[in-house]
Amino acid sequence: MAYFDNISKIKYEGAQSKDPLAFKFYNPEEQINGKSMEELMRFGVAYWHTFTEDLSDPFGVGTAQRPWDKYSDPMEKAKARVEAAFEFFEKLGVPYFCFHDYDIAPEGKNLKETLENQDIIVDMIEDHMRDSKVKLLWNTVNNFTNPMFVHGASTSNNADVFAYSAAKVKKGLEVGKRLGAESYVFWGGREGYESLLNTNMGLELDNLARFFHMANDYAKEIGFDAQFLIEPKPKEPTSHQYDFDVAHGFAFLQKYGLENVFKFNIEANHATLAGHSFEHELHYARINGMLGSVDANQGHPHLGWDTDEFPSDLYSTTLAMYEILKNGGLEKGGLNFDAKVRRTSFKPEDLFKAHIVGMDSFAIGAKVAQRLLDDKALENIIDNRYSSYNDGIGKEIVTGNTDFKKLQDYAYGIDKIEHESGNVEVIKSILNQYLVTTLAK
Amino acid sequence: MAYFDNISKIKYEGAQSKDPLAFKFYNPEEQINGKSMEELMRFGVAYWHTFTEDLSDPFGVGTAQRPWDKYSDPMEKAKARVEAAFEFFEKLGVPYFCFHDYDIAPEGKNLKETLENQDIIVDMIEDHMRDSKVKLLWNTVNNFTNPMFVHGASTSNNADVFAYSAAKVKKGLEVGKRLGAESYVFWGGREGYESLLNTNMGLELDNLARFFHMANDYAKEIGFDAQFLIEPKPKEPTSHQYDFDVAHGFAFLQKYGLENVFKFNIEANHATLAGHSFEHELHYARINGMLGSVDANQGHPHLGWDTDEFPSDLYSTTLAMYEILKNGGLEKGGLNFDAKVRRTSFKPEDLFKAHIVGMDSFAIGAKVAQRLLDDKALENIIDNRYSSYNDGIGKEIVTGNTDFKKLQDYAYGIDKIEHESGNVEVIKSILNQYLVTTLAK
Amino acid sequence: MAYFDNISKIKYEGAQSKDPLAFKFYNPEEQINGKSMEELMRFGVAYWHTFTEDLSDPFGVGTAQRPWDKYSDPMEKAKARVEAAFEFFEKLGVPYFCFHDYDIAPEGKNLKETLENQDIIVDMIEDHMRDSKVKLLWNTVNNFTNPMFVHGASTSNNADVFAYSAAKVKKGLEVGKRLGAESYVFWGGREGYESLLNTNMGLELDNLARFFHMANDYAKEIGFDAQFLIEPKPKEPTSHQYDFDVAHGFAFLQKYGLENVFKFNIEANHATLAGHSFEHELHYARINGMLGSVDANQGHPHLGWDTDEFPSDLYSTTLAMYEILKNGGLEKGGLNFDAKVRRTSFKPEDLFKAHIVGMDSFAIGAKVAQRLLDDKALENIIDNRYSSYNDGIGKEIVTGNTDFKKLQDYAYGIDKIEHESGNVEVIKSILNQYLVTTLAK
Amino acid sequence: MAYFDNISKIKYEGAQSKDPLAFKFYNPEEQINGKSMEELMRFGVAYWHTFTEDLSDPFGVGTAQRPWDKYSDPMEKAKARVEAAFEFFEKLGVPYFCFHDYDIAPEGKNLKETLENQDIIVDMIEDHMRDSKVKLLWNTVNNFTNPMFVHGASTSNNADVFAYSAAKVKKGLEVGKRLGAESYVFWGGREGYESLLNTNMGLELDNLARFFHMANDYAKEIGFDAQFLIEPKPKEPTSHQYDFDVAHGFAFLQKYGLENVFKFNIEANHATLAGHSFEHELHYARINGMLGSVDANQGHPHLGWDTDEFPSDLYSTTLAMYEILKNGGLEKGGLNFDAKVRRTSFKPEDLFKAHIVGMDSFAIGAKVAQRLLDDKALENIIDNRYSSYNDGIGKEIVTGNTDFKKLQDYAYGIDKIEHESGNVEVIKSILNQYLVTTLAK
Ligand SMILES: [Co+2]
Ligand SMILES: [Co+2]
Ligand SMILES: [Co+2]
Ligand SMILES: [Co+2]
Ligand SMILES: [Co+2]
Ligand SMILES: [Co+2]
Ligand SMILES: [Co+2]
Ligand SMILES: [Co+2]
Repeated sequence: MAYFDNISKIKYEGAQSKDPLAFKFYNPEEQINGKSMEELMRFGVAYWHTFTEDLSDPFGVGTAQRPWDKYSDPMEKAKARVEAAFEFFEKLGVPYFCFHDYDIAPEGKNLKETLENQDIIVDMIEDHMRDSKVKLLWNTVNNFTNPMFVHGASTSNNADVFAYSAAKVKKGLEVGKRLGAESYVFWGGREGYESLLNTNMGLELDNLARFFHMANDYAKEIGFDAQFLIEPKPKEPTSHQYDFDVAHGFAFLQKYGLENVFKFNIEANHATLAGHSFEHELHYARINGMLGSVDANQGHPHLGWDTDEFPSDLYSTTLAMYEILKNGGLEKGGLNFDAKVRRTSFKPEDLFKAHIVGMDSFAIGAKVAQRLLDDKALENIIDNRYSSYNDGIGKEIVTGNTDFKKLQDYAYGIDKIEHESGNVEVIKSILNQYLVTTLAK
Repeated sequence: MAYFDNISKIKYEGAQSKDPLAFKFYNPEEQINGKSMEELMRFGVAYWHTFTEDLSDPFGVGTAQRPWDKYSDPMEKAKARVEAAFEFFEKLGVPYFCFHDYDIAPEGKNLKETLENQDIIVDMIEDHMRDSKVKLLWNTVNNFTNPMFVHGASTSNNADVFAYSAAKVKKGLEVGKRLGAESYVFWGGREGYESLLNTNMGLELDNLARFFHMANDYAKEIGFDAQFLIEPKPKEPTSHQYDFDVAHGFAFLQKYGLENVFKFNIEANHATLAGHSFEHELHYARINGMLGSVDANQGHPHLGWDTDEFPSDLYSTTLAMYEILKNGGLEKGGLNFDAKVRRTSFKPEDLFKAHIVGMDSFAIGAKVAQRLLDDKALENIIDNRYSSYNDGIGKEIVTGNTDFKKLQDYAYGIDKIEHESGNVEVIKSILNQYLVTTLAK
Repeated sequence: MAYFDNISKIKYEGAQSKDPLAFKFYNPEEQINGKSMEELMRFGVAYWHTFTEDLSDPFGVGTAQRPWDKYSDPMEKAKARVEAAFEFFEKLGVPYFCFHDYDIAPEGKNLKETLENQDIIVDMIEDHMRDSKVKLLWNTVNNFTNPMFVHGASTSNNADVFAYSAAKVKKGLEVGKRLGAESYVFWGGREGYESLLNTNMGLELDNLARFFHMANDYAKEIGFDAQFLIEPKPKEPTSHQYDFDVAHGFAFLQKYGLENVFKFNIEANHATLAGHSFEHELHYARINGMLGSVDANQGHPHLGWDTDEFPSDLYSTTLAMYEILKNGGLEKGGLNFDAKVRRTSFKPEDLFKAHIVGMDSFAIGAKVAQRLLDDKALENIIDNRYSSYNDGIGKEIVTGNTDFKKLQDYAYGIDKIEHESGNVEVIKSILNQYLVTTLAK
Repeated sequence: MAYFDNISKIKYEGAQSKDPLAFKFYNPEEQINGKSMEELMRFGVAYWHTFTEDLSDPFGVGTAQRPWDKYSDPMEKAKARVEAAFEFFEKLGVPYFCFHDYDIAPEGKNLKETLENQDIIVDMIEDHMRDSKVKLLWNTVNNFTNPMFVHGASTSNNADVFAYSAAKVKKGLEVGKRLGAESYVFWGGREGYESLLNTNMGLELDNLARFFHMANDYAKEIGFDAQFLIEPKPKEPTSHQYDFDVAHGFAFLQKYGLENVFKFNIEANHATLAGHSFEHELHYARINGMLGSVDANQGHPHLGWDTDEFPSDLYSTTLAMYEILKNGGLEKGGLNFDAKVRRTSFKPEDLFKAHIVGMDSFAIGAKVAQRLLDDKALENIIDNRYSSYNDGIGKEIVTGNTDFKKLQDYAYGIDKIEHESGNVEVIKSILNQYLVTTLAK
């Protein structure tokens, strides 16, 4: 049966279309620097926001109208969601999806039943994947919703919870292998603290590292070669999340000898909550060889929580695609829409419309970014700006052929230091010019 | 003599120009809804940021390279600035300028000498204005830089400072009348508090109102019919500025019977520091009949102080122009660039380049906004969304023909409340579509 | 039956007690400036956070262990909550409580059944109040949780929702009258906007004013003489709430002729989310004659949402009590604990412990504040600081006997303006000195 | 000659003193856990804020009244400052001071003259130190004020600036060695970016690491064994500073093999601007063995820039001293007052008063923190909270004797996970209880 009867396969209609159920800019086959848009962007649908989110907020119950809610039995509903999900993926034309264990199958009355429930649904997903081109970008487990995780999961003060969390991630790795997940994500749910006053941060971080090492060992043991990813977030639900931002994660990974095991899954809204721009986090990860995947969404500039909005800011999508293109694409990662429709966008068709907005926004970003790169519009500015390191004293510095004494001798001889303008205003207007002139038809 | 020898009159070259010293989108004569761009936008140059700012910051001395700095005598430098200013205005092709008293003329050793210095420079400005089409958008006085204002000006705990401030504003009104200022601005410099613990806020606010009433009385007395404007700002330099945002100013004006005397001069960066969007402040002022003028700039999304950047964010310029067009223009106000070049953009030509960026950004905004209005792209959505108030119970409500008892009777009869989606995601993508399809050549 | 079997009546044990179930500083009969602590502080328990909150958050289901959750029938549970509530009030020794309609009784299948459910529970509450000294500080209605309020209540785009909201508030006023509520609160739930792009703010604000006028008319009609209160909040759940802060509310009330009908219910956490200190909002309301009541809680300094923590910051409680003492108390208002235990404090006894923390924190604040007032520790500093307005030109200014011309004449004669230090650092240390020396036993 | 004629040696008078020029809580000889307060806290005066700061802000010129400003010749003024400084240190009774090169001696017309100026003043400081017990806590160089550093110092795009910066730091290391500095600080002035769009972050970070390695090599070469310290700051003056917070610095140091060369100098106001609490940064550095020294100040909770206020918040000083006591003191670091008097506290005596406030605030913090530790008030809570890791499965986890398979087997056998309350509210009230009962006389 169909859950989105009144929706047809979404088509590309071009920049002038007024149909909210058509792509205006995302044309999957269109080539960008030798890849199709589909291959370059590797869009993924987040199972949680699209199929289990009810659009409740702290001040109101859910508003979502979802056809599968006609089922009240949890397993019946879970099965209906799988049907709806594959119908959605194919009508939207998206190559990937992502999920937590509890998104796809309900918890049972104990661990055994919980894992059995998963097996039933994973069988069903596997069947659907066989008949479909849709693949699993990444999976993960939800170790934060159940009250047992109230004090954290692998950083809980309660060793039983550490064990329980391990059991669930073990299953997650097995499920990932079975469904061919390209990456596996660790978002630190409640790995952080409510208050320093009752927290042993040293022990908690050591335990987190122990957990990651055991996960890596087990993945190797079963031959699951997905890219491991940490998804940083600065706060919420805890007051301080240990994986605060990419730099916090990178410091942690290096301290515990895990920097070659993990890369980062960078979420736009998490970046901005940490006081960084989205492109900053992507750039910082990229130059450190740690850019793995992207949770494509956006925050609200005046709200202090994770709003997980569908991405529509074209500055953000352009600069994100710029980093991704500079990275040579995302390899085993993709652009996962960790984004939910607003509580006021509660109709089933809003799920399609919002994904289209996100995909079109990134498509615009990709086209503008590629044109910037083709023209070396920013690259030439930067190359020229740092040209003093290409020879003379600059070259001595970058090749390691100098020291403080030689540099002081050199400095004594400097008559006057001449600088060029940084030209920031003009560079921003170049970006604008590309933005408004690249896409009209 | 010329201060910008190597700069010619800035010309409009169209969207494909690569010349940082040409307009790509601002075409002064181009018509937008029956007005030329020049008439609609009424751009103004801020004397302070352009001619007196040295680009120092709390961690470094000034970097600005300004040809008039060859003069060391303050009055000689002031005169050179006037020459440079009119050369700048005419080469840039901007119809207005704005200044504080201390921008144009240096303080003397006492009040008398200070006002005499002003007279000399005002004579000179008047001469230049006679030979030019450039007009004075607004003037104001600087009652915050001198150490005498350390505890505020009209809200100082020291009555002598209140008197001194009054003397300066009296002169400001006279200068404004003489030079034909269209508006007169009150930005509350240090009118606020460092700490509540040593502050009599009640007295300070009463005194501020007394000051404004006296200013209005004096303006009437001398026949100066400029629009009085309060420029809200939430914080900086004080921890709490009394004119925090438009709503704070509106509450104050109403309490003290001044709501018909003042409108607001809304600065983008002040809006965002107050936790609002620029367009929110414009909209709120507009629907309350209080939108007077605009300080066109932008803040940095991750910095907590007034960065006064040149406006380049096209979402912001588009939505600002949308409000201005809905307001039927700005009447006696305009778009004053209360914006400074970055400390890293220290060359004289950066002053031109940055103003061009600002003017082009607002020109794009104006064109996109007008097309949105022409197509009723947003207006139709809103009209349709609120249509329930056009008849039935909705009409009873808005025409005042109902009460709680009738409404309860009606509510008993409601079977089911049906809602439409708010469609926020799609509406944002419509804005994007207009942004990327309106301007290509 | 008893719901808190293992809890006895909470006793005052003094500053050295280590019992988390005893007061260390709140001694209800202790006199502060001629009133008992109980009379001065008028503590109230918030029904929602204490009896219906399940401690879920956006990333996890509820953790709260509540003995009344053994009932699954909504009306049975509602009745159990009333029993538990009065047991709680009396064991804690708190004189007031506050509720929303949906806190006390479940929604029915339509408006009629909903109001009938309320009647049943209100009967029961009335019975309990007859046998108790506990009184109703204020009530309100919840016009934000149900999906029908997805687009707002009295500011909904849907006129049916306006009518339904009116019906509910009408009942709320009747219930308030019946139970002797001293105040009646309007917190603007979803009265604000998700996005300006689809909002008619002018119509929404007009409708909000219409709603308030009708509420006032109906209260007068039924002889309900509670103090009406607006509770400002800047954002959450909407991106911009219309009652952003006290100043926004005050501007609105004046515009629509409602400034004599309403005062404000000021919540600490809402103040800080708006970029103000709690004491600022209290002070600003007080000097404008608009301080009505207080929602006593606190926010987390690094979190951008309403955390509604139990108040423990002694600077905040001291400065709040300072404003309340300066206001001559709160008249028909009180200190309502709009505060919830952390999700990690899920045991039934945590409800007692957290309230004790809040009451002790305010008791410390009251004692320190009263000692500051007794010694005129801050008042003398301020009186001295503004003494220039007691005679001479200062007196002319505050008595309205001067104008800009006279002030300029005076200013010409000023030789040098002398200032005193603002002494902010020392004043903060005086506060510290009072804090650490007032309470030891 | 004396610069503070009307100030006598500051004495400890006890908690009831009302003299703003006496200590109420800081008693240098009082013992705390076997150390005198003087030895434990190692207070330092910051030369820049105390002797060169003029109290200008972006909206006003300096207000500071400083007796040495009677000199106009820069070297005469520099010498007067040295005299004033040692008078200040001794009257205040502070054991340490800290400076940048340009604080003590003016720049000359070229590098040579600049370094010669330093030599003259360093001679003079050396003489004073010989006759005094005051020691140099740390020194550093100012590579950010001069326009040559407009694009950064060791991260400048201009190799000449890198060389010039190296020359200055070389001298700084020599001066530090000569004056016996216990630490040497690197605060990243303009090491960051204005905009990513014109920045080669990869090259800049590589160069920063090269610079640090060369500095370390040179310090070893000259036998300067001070502790190297990075002082993190998230933003200001640049939009993104590379040493954003301790975690960013730690990630960087590990990447470039510098983690054994550096520790961190943690500033309270920088911590809060980065979205962390001061105590968080101290704690995180401590558990990673990286806590070096402290810049003791505080920020304003509603202001988004570095206000560098004198520390007065007792929660903050208590929790900072708690971390320092847990760290066994600060070894080669200390509590440097990187704090300036407010612009409204412009009198010379305000410098003494504000330092007294800071020292008293930390003295209170130290006494409360030590009592918390003596009673194991928090330690017992934490030990008990994590006791599940002392045996059983918990012990297997922390000793590395388990894996995911064993943990899953264990998890299958868990019947029910039982949690204790986190007790956060009560723990906060314990802190309050200690705060208000420890210090009264
Ligand atoms: Co995510
Ligand atoms: Co998110
Ligand atoms: Co402005
Ligand atoms: Co500004
Ligand atoms: Co509240
Ligand atoms: Co709240
Ligand atoms: Co510092
Ligand atoms: Co600082």
